[in-house]
Amino acid sequence: MAQKFGFELKATDGRARMGVISTPRGEIRTPAFMPVGTAATVKAMMPESVRATGADILLGNTYHLMLRPGAERIARLGGLHKFMNWDRPILTDSGGFQVMSLSGLRKLTEEGVRFSSHVDGSKHMLSPERSMEIQKLLGSDIVMCFDECPALPATEAEVAKSMRLSMRWAQRSRDAFGDRPGHALFGIMQGGVTPDLRAESAEKLREIGFDGYAVGGLAVGEGQEAMFGVLDYAPGYLPEDRPRYLMGVGKPDDIVGAVERGIDMMDCVLPSRSGRTGQAWTPRGQVNIKNARHQDDPRPLDESCGCPACRNYSRAYLHHVFKSQEIIASMLLTWHNLHYYQDLMLGLRDAIAAGQLSGFVAQFHATRAQGDIEPL
Amino acid sequence: MAQKFGFELKATDGRARMGVISTPRGEIRTPAFMPVGTAATVKAMMPESVRATGADILLGNTYHLMLRPGAERIARLGGLHKFMNWDRPILTDSGGFQVMSLSGLRKLTEEGVRFSSHVDGSKHMLSPERSMEIQKLLGSDIVMCFDECPALPATEAEVAKSMRLSMRWAQRSRDAFGDRPGHALFGIMQGGVTPDLRAESAEKLREIGFDGYAVGGLAVGEGQEAMFGVLDYAPGYLPEDRPRYLMGVGKPDDIVGAVERGIDMMDCVLPSRSGRTGQAWTPRGQVNIKNARHQDDPRPLDESCGCPACRNYSRAYLHHVFKSQEIIASMLLTWHNLHYYQDLMLGLRDAIAAGQLSGFVAQFHATRAQGDIEPL
Repeated sequence: MAQKFGFELKATDGRARMGVISTPRGEIRTPAFMPVGTAATVKAMMPESVRATGADILLGNTYHLMLRPGAERIARLGGLHKFMNWDRPILTDSGGFQVMSLSGLRKLTEEGVRFSSHVDGSKHMLSPERSMEIQKLLGSDIVMCFDECPALPATEAEVAKSMRLSMRWAQRSRDAFGDRPGHALFGIMQGGVTPDLRAESAEKLREIGFDGYAVGGLAVGEGQEAMFGVLDYAPGYLPEDRPRYLMGVGKPDDIVGAVERGIDMMDCVLPSRSGRTGQAWTPRGQVNIKNARHQDDPRPLDESCGCPACRNYSRAYLHHVFKSQEIIASMLLTWHNLHYYQDLMLGLRDAIAAGQLSGFVAQFHATRAQGDIEPL
Repeated sequence: MAQKFGFELKATDGRARMGVISTPRGEIRTPAFMPVGTAATVKAMMPESVRATGADILLGNTYHLMLRPGAERIARLGGLHKFMNWDRPILTDSGGFQVMSLSGLRKLTEEGVRFSSHVDGSKHMLSPERSMEIQKLLGSDIVMCFDECPALPATEAEVAKSMRLSMRWAQRSRDAFGDRPGHALFGIMQGGVTPDLRAESAEKLREIGFDGYAVGGLAVGEGQEAMFGVLDYAPGYLPEDRPRYLMGVGKPDDIVGAVERGIDMMDCVLPSRSGRTGQAWTPRGQVNIKNARHQDDPRPLDESCGCPACRNYSRAYLHHVFKSQEIIASMLLTWHNLHYYQDLMLGLRDAIAAGQLSGFVAQFHATRAQGDIEPL
């Protein structure tokens, strides 16, 4: 096991990259999809099942964990890995995005953000220094800078002002993080959809120096076209020898497009959240298991899938347990979706390594275009 | 694997019995606790996890399954075992109890019960013949006679009248069941708390002849003392060479008391339902994981337990995920409770085999009397 954090780029195909991130807690094969374990659990999954889908790393949410059960409490209990029974790498976000989207009354200053908890209304402060402290208390392997993500729509001037605040916070995050061998700190590029602002942000982050770089401020409602527009140039502003992380993405076709554009890491609640609302993802697109056409269907969700939901259960069963509001519906559909996402990442990595990404992507879109299997 | 249904009594200790039920789908070690899989799932559990706790057999509910997804549908899909991915024995109840406790408008006649579904208000009929048909469509290994369980309080005359109706229905159930090698039909003794009525019911059932016999009409709110009062004599009215099943029982001390009184099989929603409401059962009694005293406790629920919840998680974690309404709370607490129940059955079987049941029971009560571990 590596003693230090490192990244090895093993292959490229066009702008797409295949590699391995090394950490003392294990390797992360990139491009990597990180399931989200917001409140110290990937909802409806046992951690050993998450691992069985092929996940090398989880994401934990600083905002949720600081409020409940509390970062100091998790530290006393031995850290987040032990607390939630996941001994592989964990990336934690900084809390910056959730504090703006979820918390109650909040006040943004140069210092940071004061806010009230959405759980119990209690008062809290997040700043670069406190975010670094919390992520250290949690024992995070990959720590994210504390940044501000402006609400859309925003003028270019607003985006510029916010980006420059985030860059000052990036410096304070770097200073507060200190030197922690085996743990990584990632900077977050901002700048909206303006190339000059993205370039300015990237330049500042490179000056400060980070172990990896995130493309922030996307997947916040701007649409796939605008997102891909930024990804067509922004990753190129970042160092080649460090991992590039696109936060909060996405649907399967978002992921494929991001990987084509040089992204190494992604996270999203979509596969787990979809599972709980009866939406399944397959190579042929999205399946709504609530639909009555499944109620007599003995076929699996996806013939080609090796997950327990597809190996052991019919669409009729999944429909029945979902309609009956049985917990196993969430368990099986979440498992399937996470399995599908990890299978997709595996396919992308293999295709990049073989120099066959364009063929893989063409097949991906052609299969989706078929739509779900015909009703019986 | 046995081709026929059979029961071998292997040891007795006082009135308590240890044995094995053989079926084409596998053996059932008795005394056996049967987890309840009402709607084709043991709530919050994967079937392989239920099996891992030590369960040899599940119970399915005719009433729920006939209404949703429908017995004919399950038959078309290959039967309940395949539908819910459980290849070991399944016992199904007759629907008689639930139709009286859960359904809407209902009319009881000599023929059977007409009622409206609690799911969608649709009209249905249950009779001995229809109950046998449904249980056959489901593919049940152990089929229960269709009976009537009178609501309490009831006069002795009401109980007698109801019992005699149930005995006529038992004959009709036997006739409708026919000859199905490898499948068993159990009669259900009624008669409330009146020894003469219990004796009359048992005599009638023995005349008809069944593969096993249930003690019905208990665990319906009469209290443990009254239940044990009946169990002090009623099992003795039944043939020694057939399994005796106490329906809907119970708490751990109910189970121990029933086994002491000659019961071989039991079922109850309690361990799974308790798991979903934050109640855990341990050798030291009941633990309410919601209680704030657990929030910093790094100790497992039960040091002596080998279930995943106890091996891999602290009370602090279980408290956190329960308070956060995370699905994993139901998954882990249900798993723990089912594991504890099966461990208890294993202990009872071993104690009976060794002729040491009284010592085991004394230890069981002494450990419970200690109460839960001291707060930190």
